[in-house]
Amino acid sequence: MHTIFVTGTAGSGKSLLTARLLEWYSSNEVTPISINLDPGVSKLQYDPDIDVREFIDFYSIMDEYNLGPNGSLILANDLISTKIEEIQNQVQELNPDYVIIDTPGQIELFVFRSSGPYFISNFYSDTKVTLFTMDGTLAISPISFVSLLFLSQSIKLRLGIPQINVLTKRDKIIEKLPEILKWSNSMIPLLNSLNLEKDTEQSLLSKDIIKTLYKSGNVLSPIAMSNITMSGMVNLSAALSRILTHGEEEHKDES
Amino acid sequence: MHTIFVTGTAGSGKSLLTARLLEWYSSNEVTPISINLDPGVSKLQYDPDIDVREFIDFYSIMDEYNLGPNGSLILANDLISTKIEEIQNQVQELNPDYVIIDTPGQIELFVFRSSGPYFISNFYSDTKVTLFTMDGTLAISPISFVSLLFLSQSIKLRLGIPQINVLTKRDKIIEKLPEILKWSNSMIPLLNSLNLEKDTEQSLLSKDIIKTLYKSGNVLSPIAMSNITMSGMVNLSAALSRILTHGEEEHKDES
Repeated sequence: MHTIFVTGTAGSGKSLLTARLLEWYSSNEVTPISINLDPGVSKLQYDPDIDVREFIDFYSIMDEYNLGPNGSLILANDLISTKIEEIQNQVQELNPDYVIIDTPGQIELFVFRSSGPYFISNFYSDTKVTLFTMDGTLAISPISFVSLLFLSQSIKLRLGIPQINVLTKRDKIIEKLPEILKWSNSMIPLLNSLNLEKDTEQSLLSKDIIKTLYKSGNVLSPIAMSNITMSGMVNLSAALSRILTHGEEEHKDES
Repeated sequence: MHTIFVTGTAGSGKSLLTARLLEWYSSNEVTPISINLDPGVSKLQYDPDIDVREFIDFYSIMDEYNLGPNGSLILANDLISTKIEEIQNQVQELNPDYVIIDTPGQIELFVFRSSGPYFISNFYSDTKVTLFTMDGTLAISPISFVSLLFLSQSIKLRLGIPQINVLTKRDKIIEKLPEILKWSNSMIPLLNSLNLEKDTEQSLLSKDIIKTLYKSGNVLSPIAMSNITMSGMVNLSAALSRILTHGEEEHKDES
């Protein structure tokens, strides 16, 4: 069993990517299931096989603890790790090849508190990977792009499992895409773009940092993906396969 | 007029730090005011002079747009930048020396969307600084500490103004504090601590990264601060003064 944790900042396209991965694996002769791990979501673009909202109710928490929306969301997210056994039991009954886990809407409530790292490290699976969705529309300026690279490293360190960065909303940034992909593949084009920035201090800081980041080999070049047109899914599934199954296609009847 | 934006991940101690800064400046013969910029907060540890909840109501948004808690919070936060004129007018009437702005509970809704960077760059003030609160209880493992350093760099790049990192909850980590402060002052102790970590891969990755980060001079050593005992406030106010007033004390009657 292979598990894909879909993470990313609020509004970066996690749930839609989860839906697309489900479709993709379903049409490739393996059995995927989806888990919604977000207690604060209202509508989803897929019908989750397992849903944390079955165990954690945002509105009851709000009433019971007399908390505002922020406080209730924090508490609801903190409770996720206490439900790991129930969730794991449901997974076992469904016996899938792939588990696609849509993590909470706000990444910081999951990654920068204790619940998320605990859940990820204790969830039983043969292999695990994190997808970090970088909102394409936020990546079009070179300084913001570098900022997202830093956030991505921060997430990787907190979660401690292999990670693939996914640049979402490819269809919305199609004109900028060749430039962004050049930035992620090599340092020089990014440095050149930073040279054209107006904010000299920010640009200098960024240049300094990216030199060190690229030289240390710690840039995870994102895979550009449109959740609308599915463009990029072949690349993404190949990258997932390299990490999860060492490049071997897995078929249900062989497993 | 000097403005301090208090930022940090959910639960890292932003609002309490805002309260402490208000007390500190009030007792130092200058006039501070506070702004609550979080539309989703229910209770605050201070009585804000200006409150974004006066302009943005979370519950009306939930009803009007038929959104769940996540979606409503995102929209409420996105609306903050549209209220900058109203807020700026209220500030002008109050005519303070210092404006202490408590930013939204979840940093990603503010920093990793458009509203926060827009607000910060367009808010009129003679000088501005960001405080980034690093939750002390999350910084006690060396890998998590490095992860927070990366997050801090990411925030600094997105916001584009001078930044001071504040290690909060000093009183809760008092035994670990000397070690954490050593990590932040120099690379070698941090590398030594990483050598003792069980997770070799994570540790290697961290070591690689921190070497480059420290060598490039891009580590913002945090100031340890207890919002309970006020320990650390003298250091913090000195650091703020270096950035905001170039070390000169400002008194109301001289300004």
